[in-house]
Amino acid sequence: MTTEARRRGPRGPYAKSAERRAAIVEAASGVFAARGYRAGSFQEVADVVGMSQTSLLHYFPSKQALLLAVLDHRDSLLGGSVQRTPGPDFRTGVLRQAEYNSGVPGLIELYSVLAGEAATQDHPGRAWFIERFTTLRGNYEAEFQALKDAGRLRDGIDPARAAAGFVALWDGIQLQWLLDPEAVDVVAVLRDHLDLVILP
Amino acid sequence: MTTEARRRGPRGPYAKSAERRAAIVEAASGVFAARGYRAGSFQEVADVVGMSQTSLLHYFPSKQALLLAVLDHRDSLLGGSVQRTPGPDFRTGVLRQAEYNSGVPGLIELYSVLAGEAATQDHPGRAWFIERFTTLRGNYEAEFQALKDAGRLRDGIDPARAAAGFVALWDGIQLQWLLDPEAVDVVAVLRDHLDLVILP
Repeated sequence: MTTEARRRGPRGPYAKSAERRAAIVEAASGVFAARGYRAGSFQEVADVVGMSQTSLLHYFPSKQALLLAVLDHRDSLLGGSVQRTPGPDFRTGVLRQAEYNSGVPGLIELYSVLAGEAATQDHPGRAWFIERFTTLRGNYEAEFQALKDAGRLRDGIDPARAAAGFVALWDGIQLQWLLDPEAVDVVAVLRDHLDLVILP
Repeated sequence: MTTEARRRGPRGPYAKSAERRAAIVEAASGVFAARGYRAGSFQEVADVVGMSQTSLLHYFPSKQALLLAVLDHRDSLLGGSVQRTPGPDFRTGVLRQAEYNSGVPGLIELYSVLAGEAATQDHPGRAWFIERFTTLRGNYEAEFQALKDAGRLRDGIDPARAAAGFVALWDGIQLQWLLDPEAVDVVAVLRDHLDLVILP
């Protein structure tokens, strides 16, 4: 494959199918963000992309499969840098990501709605969120542990609990901001917290 | 009214009506906690209490009215002590409330689901949550300001942002706990945070 072909991506039937899938995931993200998973319907997603339910089922065999695709897609847009390595400097990486998030309220809304809903019984997104929080806590714990090893974590702070707390703070303050953007400054709250925990 | 009559509450038709209302709110709390507001149906609530939809409408003219009653009721069970004064000592009051909350996961679930959902467009609980967060932030700010005035807030902490952050931390860590109770210790995370912010 030439460089140019690779840049353009595959062609032919596969490309068309991938485009369709992407359009469906996009539409489902909007529907689930607006209504949540349980109240959002397959039919509504089909209407948004202009397909029949039968055609939609060809791409995603169930609403649950669609939900998992939406969650993975959302992470590929947003979570990547936070979940893996936030760059050379932890504090800078986090604040940059928070800054970026303030420009994509729709994705934050999607996440807040589905995370709350996932805590309910038999929710098909539950396992995904449990795994996600486990991964996030582990990654942040490693960051805080590295700071501790470098003598830059404030005395007496436990890296594992600090990690759970930081993930919680970020989720919680984003929810307040979604509801009342004028009243809440996400980046300032996160910065205050990091300045308290991390020594210069 | 004698003391005894007051203790027993009103009798006759009014008492019966109040009992019915309470049973409906209880049923709706369960339905909304399990499915969220949008997917939870009036019919399901009616089924749980064994009434017809028509009788239910006599007590609550709309699903929205029922939602607001559920939210107020949940606050009367849980939020009261936190939202008003958490007792003589802020730290003790908060940790006692968090300890109590761990025994009522259904109420925490109800709150997490509805708060996430409320951030979506045109949600009928949105105004309620905006007001609730405004009140909570104001009350916690007053607590942190009082600590600051007493020289017990760590240097450089802004009471208003600390208040928003503390509310966020609590909500976020409760959500993680709902999803994975074995992995998360809500009280320990809150205690760590307060010990960081409040000087002995």
